[in-house]
Amino acid sequence: MTNEDPDIFGGGSSVLLVNVIVNGKKGSIYIDESGKIGETCEGTNAGLKSEAEFIIDGNGAIATPGFTNTHTHAAMSLLRGYADDMHLQQWLSEKIWPLEAHLTGEDVYRGTELACIEMIRSGTIAFNDMYFFMDQAAKAVDEMGMKAVLCHGFIDFGDEAKRESEIKATEALYSHVKGMNNPRIKMATGPHAPYTVSREGLTWCSEFSKEKDVHLHIHLSETETEVKECIEQHGKKPAELLEECGCLTNKTIAAHCCWLDDAECELLGKYGVSPSHNPASNMKLAGGRAMPYQKLLDAGANPTLGTDGCSSNNNLDILEEVKFAALLQKFFWNSDTVLPANEAYDMITSAGAKALGFGPGRIEKGAPADIVLIRTDVACNTPLYNPVSNIIYSCGSNAVDTVICDGRVLMHENTIPGEEEILKKASETAFDLVRRKEDAG
Amino acid sequence: MTNEDPDIFGGGSSVLLVNVIVNGKKGSIYIDESGKIGETCEGTNAGLKSEAEFIIDGNGAIATPGFTNTHTHAAMSLLRGYADDMHLQQWLSEKIWPLEAHLTGEDVYRGTELACIEMIRSGTIAFNDMYFFMDQAAKAVDEMGMKAVLCHGFIDFGDEAKRESEIKATEALYSHVKGMNNPRIKMATGPHAPYTVSREGLTWCSEFSKEKDVHLHIHLSETETEVKECIEQHGKKPAELLEECGCLTNKTIAAHCCWLDDAECELLGKYGVSPSHNPASNMKLAGGRAMPYQKLLDAGANPTLGTDGCSSNNNLDILEEVKFAALLQKFFWNSDTVLPANEAYDMITSAGAKALGFGPGRIEKGAPADIVLIRTDVACNTPLYNPVSNIIYSCGSNAVDTVICDGRVLMHENTIPGEEEILKKASETAFDLVRRKEDAG
Repeated sequence: MTNEDPDIFGGGSSVLLVNVIVNGKKGSIYIDESGKIGETCEGTNAGLKSEAEFIIDGNGAIATPGFTNTHTHAAMSLLRGYADDMHLQQWLSEKIWPLEAHLTGEDVYRGTELACIEMIRSGTIAFNDMYFFMDQAAKAVDEMGMKAVLCHGFIDFGDEAKRESEIKATEALYSHVKGMNNPRIKMATGPHAPYTVSREGLTWCSEFSKEKDVHLHIHLSETETEVKECIEQHGKKPAELLEECGCLTNKTIAAHCCWLDDAECELLGKYGVSPSHNPASNMKLAGGRAMPYQKLLDAGANPTLGTDGCSSNNNLDILEEVKFAALLQKFFWNSDTVLPANEAYDMITSAGAKALGFGPGRIEKGAPADIVLIRTDVACNTPLYNPVSNIIYSCGSNAVDTVICDGRVLMHENTIPGEEEILKKASETAFDLVRRKEDAG
Repeated sequence: MTNEDPDIFGGGSSVLLVNVIVNGKKGSIYIDESGKIGETCEGTNAGLKSEAEFIIDGNGAIATPGFTNTHTHAAMSLLRGYADDMHLQQWLSEKIWPLEAHLTGEDVYRGTELACIEMIRSGTIAFNDMYFFMDQAAKAVDEMGMKAVLCHGFIDFGDEAKRESEIKATEALYSHVKGMNNPRIKMATGPHAPYTVSREGLTWCSEFSKEKDVHLHIHLSETETEVKECIEQHGKKPAELLEECGCLTNKTIAAHCCWLDDAECELLGKYGVSPSHNPASNMKLAGGRAMPYQKLLDAGANPTLGTDGCSSNNNLDILEEVKFAALLQKFFWNSDTVLPANEAYDMITSAGAKALGFGPGRIEKGAPADIVLIRTDVACNTPLYNPVSNIIYSCGSNAVDTVICDGRVLMHENTIPGEEEILKKASETAFDLVRRKEDAG
């Protein structure tokens, strides 16, 4: 690809993508200065060529809508490989939680930068994040040029004082994000899960979300144990409890959803919830059941895909994740035709964008210019019978060449500005975190 | 990385790898002119530096033994994405077999070249291949510089005339490979599966393998149906039938092995068979059960990993496959500690090399210089707490920088000589194959 220029990464410029495959045809895409798709056309369009400040020659690449990752804990990238292959409870109590107890805002900033690098490299332009020190996560997302819905993980374990502090943290994040006035960055309420948040906490989150018109991001039925305990404690299944507390809406993103039964799938469908399937995490932690994708889809829910955090995956590569999704659904549900390539592709484009409220997730006039170029001069796209099949089943992030978010070029010809420094800082931060934990005993 | 030179790809030169992590320590690796590892040492070793014709600066990369892919049908790379998301029997009878009926030797040559490109890019240096026109596959392997065990897929369906022609094809491949006199290329007998080959065919293959001291490569218990039919037809389980026909030895590589019961695992262990786990293919085709890895290991078998062919995967990326293996084992066998990273790593290094008889699969003095450099200045290796964990759970083939097989540099700084032309030819060949099939009606 040619015509590159350091300034191409600046944003705010008109860009013409030529020599790309767009919506199945060879053509061009014009991106205007406001970051919207002006028009797409077959051929090169000499008229547009004279208007554009930058021309990117796609060299036959597939232009696809940018991908979305609807469930992660971005800054946990700092914990990648810190502890694996342990029993879940031992892993959490001996390794993950003691380390997280020493996390600072600076750590979250560096970890989120690292996460953005990974996500951009796999063609991700938007993500849904739950963690702590989210003002620092917002700073990283702002600087990296991605889109994100950010929430503070709200956990009260039924304790009123704890609940009050979580409410304050949530309100502070709302004010902070509002003050940033960056349409690429939104906040959500983040009631962690039905088993870690009281009814009062769940209800407060749902009411705050409705009042402020923001998303609600929650873990739902990841393990069989939590479902059993919910029924014992509340006399209801987890999705029923969420309905009662007002937590099911079309701005709700529910991660995992492995152990939902048919009636719960119907509930999520009724309210237009967006489930986030997290296959790699569910497999690595031996969760025992895959999200009932087809039931949720048939019920009217909006199934999407997430990587979960790096400590249970151990990366944020959405192209790897989508293959896990398409294959795990077939394997677990014993069907060689469930979640075909085109539906898996929808999960990471149109459905994901809909879930997060970031445009249609399609390449069409007037849509945000969230566009990824996938190289076709690579083995994973040879031969190129079916671009969507290749993207889902064959390609990895090494085929991702260029990533554009709201018209701003985040990666071009495999280069992300500042990457080397970001990786260096993230590595230093990670080892410093471990040192602080060890110093504290 | 520096000091590159076009001639670095020639082979037959001494090479010093400096600034790499080898067996957990920063150091250097000297490769002599015969393609063997001379020695490894900490630091740079100025003495060796003056001897080496080429110096490769690993820039902190992890030096790992090259990976092995113990079950594939390499030339099926031409069928990548040609048909997906169909019911198995319809897919085979309407799509795959009609296309394969038009395959030529030239197709297999081009498809195997394409497959080698993919495998080299994920750090694979050796593979175990079953297909047709294997003299042409051998030509591609020879030129690409990889190692392979090649077999003609032997299918008689109980027909004596068919068996005679398969015997002739197997004998011809033996003579052809012997005539090549290339220690990187071996032949095996390839009885396709217990359900496609008669007892007589199985017995002939086992006897030929023993007489010529070559491997035997077979599909075993991929689906539940074939196990049931074997018991109905032969009154024995598939592994028992193979034992009776002499097909179980320590030179046997058995692909899939999903539906083996405990007694069959013991049988494979008793004879030191190398099972080849093919998780992506088993998941995509909704096979319903994962290979009983732990039972096979405990019984004394030598579990390894394979990608299967591109029509059921749809790529040959062993780093993607190894993550599928480590996660599928945990998920299916409901254990968060089964197949930990270090054992998964053994599957694609030492166990794979042992299965195919290509050295120890370790970086040690006197071993073949089958070495892969994995970059550490990339997100998937940030932070670098645990190199093996990162290789198995986090890294994709985009982290693979340099691949060396028997001392010959096959890829350096992400460049494989001739790749562009090979991909172009493979693409033309694939579309020509489809055209020939369509012309024939």
